[in-house]
Amino acid sequence: MEKPEGKNNKTNASQHLSVEEDVIFGKNSVLEALTSGKREINKILISKNIHTDVKINKIKELAQQQGIVFQFVAKEKFQAYAEFNHQGIIAQISPIKYMDLDEFIENNTASNSSLVILDGVEDSHNLGAIIRTCVCAGVDGIIIPSRRNVQVNSIVEKTSAGAINHIPIIKVNSLVNAVQKLKDNNWWVIATDASAKDNYYDVKYDDMNFVIIMGAEHAGVSKSLLKASDFVVKIPMQNSFNSLNVSNALSAIIFEALRQKLIKK
Amino acid sequence: MEKPEGKNNKTNASQHLSVEEDVIFGKNSVLEALTSGKREINKILISKNIHTDVKINKIKELAQQQGIVFQFVAKEKFQAYAEFNHQGIIAQISPIKYMDLDEFIENNTASNSSLVILDGVEDSHNLGAIIRTCVCAGVDGIIIPSRRNVQVNSIVEKTSAGAINHIPIIKVNSLVNAVQKLKDNNWWVIATDASAKDNYYDVKYDDMNFVIIMGAEHAGVSKSLLKASDFVVKIPMQNSFNSLNVSNALSAIIFEALRQKLIKK
Repeated sequence: MEKPEGKNNKTNASQHLSVEEDVIFGKNSVLEALTSGKREINKILISKNIHTDVKINKIKELAQQQGIVFQFVAKEKFQAYAEFNHQGIIAQISPIKYMDLDEFIENNTASNSSLVILDGVEDSHNLGAIIRTCVCAGVDGIIIPSRRNVQVNSIVEKTSAGAINHIPIIKVNSLVNAVQKLKDNNWWVIATDASAKDNYYDVKYDDMNFVIIMGAEHAGVSKSLLKASDFVVKIPMQNSFNSLNVSNALSAIIFEALRQKLIKK
Repeated sequence: MEKPEGKNNKTNASQHLSVEEDVIFGKNSVLEALTSGKREINKILISKNIHTDVKINKIKELAQQQGIVFQFVAKEKFQAYAEFNHQGIIAQISPIKYMDLDEFIENNTASNSSLVILDGVEDSHNLGAIIRTCVCAGVDGIIIPSRRNVQVNSIVEKTSAGAINHIPIIKVNSLVNAVQKLKDNNWWVIATDASAKDNYYDVKYDDMNFVIIMGAEHAGVSKSLLKASDFVVKIPMQNSFNSLNVSNALSAIIFEALRQKLIKK
C-alpha cells in the first residue's frame, strides 16, 4: 500500500488525498457539504466495495449536477484513514472560511442574537458536538481563539455531521479583546464557572444579545474572561461526581436560553 | 511484541490484560474506580515511562491502602490498547453489576425520582456522555435493553470518566415490559420524538416520578414505546439542520426537569 501524500504533493493528480484539514469523511459529512453549497468540493473518492444506499445515490446525483469529479477507488486506498470511520467515502474540500468578528457584528442586526465563546476546548469530538448543538439551538456564531483551542479539523467536521456548514466560526487572536468589542456593541457576556453563585437559569436571555463563554475541559474559563463578564453562572450539580462534559453543559444552558425566547413569543 | 491474551488465558499470571469489558483505561477512570469503592479492582498496570503527577500518586496511595497489586510495565505492553487513550495506566476490574428493575422499583421510595431509558443507542461515546450527564443532573438510574443497544464496555467506562460508578444501570429484556411495569408503579413515561406536538419544557416534571425515553441515533424511539408513553415531546429545532446528538438532546431535557425541581424548592 502506498502512503498518503504530504502537502507538497497536492498538485500530483493521484487518487490519494493527504490527511489534512481539508478532507472530510463519511456519507453524512459529504452529503451535507454538497447540499449546503457552502464548501467548494474538489474531488470525491468512493470505495469500489461500498454498499450503495440512498445517501450514496444522492451524493452521486449532486456531484454530477455540480460537475464535481468522483472516482471509484480500491478499498485499500482508504486504509490510511481507518481511524476516521470514513464509510468508504472521502471528499477533498476547500478549507472552512473563518469569519471576522467585526464582519459578524456589522452584519448582525437582530436584537436577540446569541454567540458561544470556547475558551480552550481541546477535544475535537467536543467541538463537533458543540457545533451541532449550537446549530440546532439557533446560535448565531461560535468564537474560538487562534491558539490554545482545537481548530476545525477532519474529526470536528465528521463529529459535527455537517453542522459546520450552517454556522459561522469566528476566529480571534484575543478572547479578552473580543469580549470587550462585544460589550462595546451592546452584547452581554455570560461566563460559566463551577463556583458561581447564580444558576444558569437565573439569567433572562430573552431580551438581549448575549454570548456564553464555556471553558476548557479541565481548567474552566480563564480568570481574565471571568473578570470581563457581566454574569457568571453555574450548572447546579446533584452529585459529588460533578464533571459534566462541556458539550452537554452548553446544551443545558443554550436550550434554556431558547426556551425563554420561545415561551415569550 | 506479544499479542494480548484471550479470555481463556485469564488464569495465566502474565503482565498483560485482554481487551475485555472488565478493563478500564486512563487516570480518571482508575482513580474514580478506586475512590468510589464500588468496583473490585484486581490489578493495576502502570507504564514505566509514565509522567508521575498528582493523580498517579493518589492512585498509588489508594492502591497500597486497599492492598491492590500494581505493576510497572514497559510501555510496549500498552501498544495493544493504543486506540483507548490509556494514558499509560490500565486496571482490570470486576464487571459492572447491572441492577434488576424490580429491585430498583422496590428500593425507590422518593416521590420525584427520574429514570432514563435508552432505546437502541449504538455509540459507546454517547452512552458514556449520557451516563455523565445523568449523574450530574441527579437521575436515579439508566435502563438499557439487553439487545440492540450498546452495553457498558471499556470505551463507555472511559468516556463516562468514572460516572458509571455513581448510578445504577438497569438491564431489561423488554423495554415495553419495563415501561408497563413502571406505569403500574406510578411512574410517568415521556418519550422523545422529532414529530411530537409538545415541547419538552411543556411537561411538569416536578411532582411525579418520570422516565424519559431517548431513541437511537438514527431511528428514534420505537413505535411500540411511543404508543406506551404518557407524553411524547420534542426539542424545538431552529435550523433545517436538525440532527442533535442524543447525549446533548438528553442534557437539554434532563436539566429542564432539574430546573423545575430546584426553582420549586
